[in-house]
Amino acid sequence: MSRPVREGARAARVERVRARMGELGVDALLLSLGADLPWLTGYEAMPLERLTMLVLPSDEELFALLPWDETDDPVRLVADLVGSRASLSVSDRTWATFVLDLQDSLPAARFSVASRVTAPLRAVKDDEEVAAIRRAAAAADRVATQLVSGDIALVGRTEADVSRDIGRRLVAEGHQRVNFAIVGSGPNSASPHHGAGGRVIAAGEPVVCDFGGTFDSYCSDITRTVFTGAPPPEYRDLYSVLEAAQAAAVDAATVGTPCEDVDAVARRLIDDGGYGPHFIHRTGHGIGLEEHEDPYLVGGNCEPLAPGHAFSVEPGIYLEGRWGARLEDIVVATAAGPEAINGVDHGLAVVEA
Amino acid sequence: MSRPVREGARAARVERVRARMGELGVDALLLSLGADLPWLTGYEAMPLERLTMLVLPSDEELFALLPWDETDDPVRLVADLVGSRASLSVSDRTWATFVLDLQDSLPAARFSVASRVTAPLRAVKDDEEVAAIRRAAAAADRVATQLVSGDIALVGRTEADVSRDIGRRLVAEGHQRVNFAIVGSGPNSASPHHGAGGRVIAAGEPVVCDFGGTFDSYCSDITRTVFTGAPPPEYRDLYSVLEAAQAAAVDAATVGTPCEDVDAVARRLIDDGGYGPHFIHRTGHGIGLEEHEDPYLVGGNCEPLAPGHAFSVEPGIYLEGRWGARLEDIVVATAAGPEAINGVDHGLAVVEA
Repeated sequence: MSRPVREGARAARVERVRARMGELGVDALLLSLGADLPWLTGYEAMPLERLTMLVLPSDEELFALLPWDETDDPVRLVADLVGSRASLSVSDRTWATFVLDLQDSLPAARFSVASRVTAPLRAVKDDEEVAAIRRAAAAADRVATQLVSGDIALVGRTEADVSRDIGRRLVAEGHQRVNFAIVGSGPNSASPHHGAGGRVIAAGEPVVCDFGGTFDSYCSDITRTVFTGAPPPEYRDLYSVLEAAQAAAVDAATVGTPCEDVDAVARRLIDDGGYGPHFIHRTGHGIGLEEHEDPYLVGGNCEPLAPGHAFSVEPGIYLEGRWGARLEDIVVATAAGPEAINGVDHGLAVVEA
Repeated sequence: MSRPVREGARAARVERVRARMGELGVDALLLSLGADLPWLTGYEAMPLERLTMLVLPSDEELFALLPWDETDDPVRLVADLVGSRASLSVSDRTWATFVLDLQDSLPAARFSVASRVTAPLRAVKDDEEVAAIRRAAAAADRVATQLVSGDIALVGRTEADVSRDIGRRLVAEGHQRVNFAIVGSGPNSASPHHGAGGRVIAAGEPVVCDFGGTFDSYCSDITRTVFTGAPPPEYRDLYSVLEAAQAAAVDAATVGTPCEDVDAVARRLIDDGGYGPHFIHRTGHGIGLEEHEDPYLVGGNCEPLAPGHAFSVEPGIYLEGRWGARLEDIVVATAAGPEAINGVDHGLAVVEA
């Protein structure tokens, strides 16, 4: 639930948040579910029908802790703390039930999402955060290394069984929580958001494994694709286009480059390779306390990359009904250039059938 | 992500939902995160910045599946489906970001929470659901039996280590997911929502273990308190008051009894035992697809229990800074009387120090 945030880091974050609230004319931040609250305080609200909410006004220093009894109305307590403040930014993941109740209790207030204030601040990781993301990535790398080395049996097992195995390994390598472990084999490898099902993995097919967890509050996320046996030339061609596109997109992720341009680089190489219509999702997403956060590498996002931005670069090629592949690393934008912090080999791994 | 719902069960649920929408004047149900969607369709939305939402109008049979691309605006798609319908009930756990965007896109609509429609329907479990809750409870019972038998080492380990151990055992017994595993030892046993920390469990102290997970979509939740060595008389007294209060509350949970009366029974016995101010939370919560759902056994809830209601009965006594205890079973209300579906012995378990 909780993670210590150094007092100095906390104070610096609160100061940046208040400055931005001032710029945007936000009178109070109402923080509940999601990563804004632990980022600011080290405390994470539980997803419960019992409301946890931090009221951070722009005009007072006060953090008040208000416990409430089971028969109290916590929304009423928040409304009282807000008072006549008119512009309120509420955590993006706050449950609808609390948003609607707050709107009823504060009919004169205008509501917006807290990410207006926090997302660009949280997207820029400080050194401690980058170090934490590195530790998470290193733990995921150890599991990915086991995968590409053939240490994780595939053929003859169901995707779900392999997914559980990968999850156990993520925990064994230090993750506190498994967030997802996608295992898409054969035709399922062509479905980018396939979970892991009852299909038994066979010899002579690709297996896309995309997995991540939470390691000391920060997230990991890596994808490697392996082939159970010798891949046929047409699959090798597909994979080589993907590998080149992923590498080029990583190289393009320099400070100052608009996010959508990184996406466009991957898309252009896949297009040039003849697979353009088969790259059907964005190139990447920011990562930190949440698996998906700003910045998003997607068409339409013209925000430039900044030092400290951490994000996935994960193009994929999907031939529906046939097979697919995806390749993903986490990258940190630095003044010295983009740095991929996953270190597992990028080549198509062939594992014994 | 998904769970098959028998077509007959699904159709019956949709019919009951539509009838209740008619009674309440709800024009469309907008289902996203939470258990309403899997309860109706077998499909669970992922908690992502990518919106999944089912639009269920009161006046059309149509379920439409609308895929959207990364650069589309899914809120716009929902708004188009809603059209001029005015009274909209949105899943309680829908993220604030989507609620606020929907309100912007549908300025004439009135929003309420979907639980207005679904909660009383979902609270009444059909036979298949009761069977599923029983299976989950039986799996949790197997772990609780290991705990009270002394098969789970306690003394000398940290709470966090024991918590992970319990989690692994929940999975080994068939749970797909661990939802929580509270381990509160010594003075931490006096904090009802303590998680599990770095404290090393010692000999001669109580350990409250409250854990549950998801087993084939339905939740388990059980609490047993053990003592590491021979408990002193004052703790035995506290525990015997608690045990009697919990048993009396279970017996009181008959069909037709207002929920708050069950709470009052536990509270009165603990009060009579001299620990009244130290029972600081509600007596219980409904359970099903969610760990906490209707009905809540809490002061102020005068709804009567109905056949098929499934809920926890879990009073506790907490002497702050000293020690505490809690005892919890899941109970199903039936025409033949309340049925506790956890079968692990209720006595204070003494485990070797």
